[in-house]
Amino acid sequence: MFTRPDVLPGNRAAACFSLFKSHSPLIHCLTNEVVQELTANVLLALGASPAMVVEPQEAEQFSRVADALLINIGTLHQPRAEAMLAAVEAANQAGKPWVLDPVAVGGLEYRTRFAQHLLAMKPAAIRGNASEVMALSGLQASGRGVDSRDDSLAALPAARALARSSGAIVAVTGAVDYVTDGERDWAVTGGDPLMTRVVGTGCALSAVVTAFCSLPGERLDNVATACRVMALCGERATASCHGPGSFTAVFLDALYHLCAEELQ
Amino acid sequence: MFTRPDVLPGNRAAACFSLFKSHSPLIHCLTNEVVQELTANVLLALGASPAMVVEPQEAEQFSRVADALLINIGTLHQPRAEAMLAAVEAANQAGKPWVLDPVAVGGLEYRTRFAQHLLAMKPAAIRGNASEVMALSGLQASGRGVDSRDDSLAALPAARALARSSGAIVAVTGAVDYVTDGERDWAVTGGDPLMTRVVGTGCALSAVVTAFCSLPGERLDNVATACRVMALCGERATASCHGPGSFTAVFLDALYHLCAEELQ
Amino acid sequence: MFTRPDVLPGNRAAACFSLFKSHSPLIHCLTNEVVQELTANVLLALGASPAMVVEPQEAEQFSRVADALLINIGTLHQPRAEAMLAAVEAANQAGKPWVLDPVAVGGLEYRTRFAQHLLAMKPAAIRGNASEVMALSGLQASGRGVDSRDDSLAALPAARALARSSGAIVAVTGAVDYVTDGERDWAVTGGDPLMTRVVGTGCALSAVVTAFCSLPGERLDNVATACRVMALCGERATASCHGPGSFTAVFLDALYHLCAEELQ
Repeated sequence: MFTRPDVLPGNRAAACFSLFKSHSPLIHCLTNEVVQELTANVLLALGASPAMVVEPQEAEQFSRVADALLINIGTLHQPRAEAMLAAVEAANQAGKPWVLDPVAVGGLEYRTRFAQHLLAMKPAAIRGNASEVMALSGLQASGRGVDSRDDSLAALPAARALARSSGAIVAVTGAVDYVTDGERDWAVTGGDPLMTRVVGTGCALSAVVTAFCSLPGERLDNVATACRVMALCGERATASCHGPGSFTAVFLDALYHLCAEELQ
Repeated sequence: MFTRPDVLPGNRAAACFSLFKSHSPLIHCLTNEVVQELTANVLLALGASPAMVVEPQEAEQFSRVADALLINIGTLHQPRAEAMLAAVEAANQAGKPWVLDPVAVGGLEYRTRFAQHLLAMKPAAIRGNASEVMALSGLQASGRGVDSRDDSLAALPAARALARSSGAIVAVTGAVDYVTDGERDWAVTGGDPLMTRVVGTGCALSAVVTAFCSLPGERLDNVATACRVMALCGERATASCHGPGSFTAVFLDALYHLCAEELQ
Repeated sequence: MFTRPDVLPGNRAAACFSLFKSHSPLIHCLTNEVVQELTANVLLALGASPAMVVEPQEAEQFSRVADALLINIGTLHQPRAEAMLAAVEAANQAGKPWVLDPVAVGGLEYRTRFAQHLLAMKPAAIRGNASEVMALSGLQASGRGVDSRDDSLAALPAARALARSSGAIVAVTGAVDYVTDGERDWAVTGGDPLMTRVVGTGCALSAVVTAFCSLPGERLDNVATACRVMALCGERATASCHGPGSFTAVFLDALYHLCAEELQ
């Protein structure tokens, strides 16, 4: 029988966020061309340090030094794929966690094969929307094409299966986010549909998930807290902006000023 | 004898914009590195969906699915040129329109050859400034170098010739924009010189032109409406911002809130 | 005995800035992927013209035409390194100044070798933080890793040595910026730590340094003025924004409205 997940308790989120603020992790971002500036600014606003190191030999070297690694395949191309593989191998050898954002996986063959290959390399977490998680889980066998409008709750069974088969924490995000290790899950509320009219909010969330994966403690809680931080600040920013253009500045300011107590 | 074009009637613009809002087209953007975020955010603010898919085999696959394709050669390099050719061929085979933004064509040899090659592949529309349109038309034989300060009205004869020889709708933009199919043309007013102090406003316009080219109906009117939408919102944003930094947020908000009636 | 540098006199800064405004230089930027939009918008706000031309043969052609060239190795990769070498050689042949921003040099081997190679090609100026300047100077022999938290004043001896050995003006930036030709130096005050929470402010400064290197007159004063312009506007923007998100718009507006008299 399907159990609807509980909402992540505020005291857990607050504790994870306090830990985050005291760690200021250094995050290696191999992400897509379109969202690099927003991704960096989101991490900086939260007090983390982003770095984009893309030449394969340097990406390998840097992954050993950074606290965690983000792999986002939004604008995947062959040379960047080589850098990603080198970085993931180095991160795995050094015991550093890495996170997969499988942008648009399912419909496009090249990236779908690549994402399946990455999946076998044991990401610490996967963050995607409903259609991406369903495509990656392999559960979806219907004739209907993968659709980013799929509801996140409908994708929760696929997320659980993917978590169990891959060993990763899976965050399937949408109007409500669900975070699961395959056995336990949290729901995370907040956010606003306006965020889908600003490019890169989902990709930046994956970077924040990556940063939280570098923390000690329960990874399920850490990933859910990353989602909660972004959802809360997104909701606040929406309330005080006038559209998707003015959203970004208010959102980054909200991330910068967020205190652990506000997550209670 | 030279005929000065009439201004695009507001009721035509309003009708095209209503059509656009009901279609929410998916636009494949192969554009330059500098302007990708603004380009995506402009399309999102208007209700369209942008996607940047750059690996040649994926670019080819995605062009068949998207409603229209943008080719912007601002930061052209060899691997991206291959992706562009694959995407254009696929779009042509699938009967999807594609648009050429010939950034800085004329002075630089590599891109000029590439743009001439693309021209033979039948773009649905071309959007450039006066010097780019004059260079691409081949009309300009004077010793004076191509100059981006060329007036758009002075380039209208070149635009008409280019439209006739290529079969594309040509939009030559400047203080006033002129849109022509070689026989008929529209003038589009609005905008502000401040927009030239914000990187990517012209490139984003080309993306909006691409989105409007995916609509049914008269393509000449559709392209002119794309220009009018951007000019009107640019004018409004200039009136309520304090410089090029605060322009962008206000501009995107204006695009997000624009209603068809306001174009009347 | 160590001499603490004097602060750049306001009348020198004002004179350099007046010269800058009358020249509106065209700047060829071969810079990192993350900061291209901010870099372009900073140059545009100040009245300069940025262009990113990246295919090696075009980069070579364009460097002869532009007034100055920026080389920033933040997201260095092999094809871009080839473009950079071609552009630097062409700039040198044409007598155009070029500036090196040695992002993250020291720790990462590939870029460190490349930066050392570039150093022998005689940059007009080098702009980096304390750890980058110390690494590039080769002075640092301690076991402690290069640390971006190194103080700019502590790096001034390394900056002077680097200026003497390379022939470049060296700007080592931090809470206070120091600009040296190896014999004489200026201190530049202003700025705010908030700027370190916005990606690309340092990289954009290097672009402004590049633009000022294209001016006639004393290069030491020109580079110091570039630093002063950014520090003053950064300080003003911090005073009227609410965090790193709202900083950028206010900062670009401040650059746009800056008058020479305000530098007195």
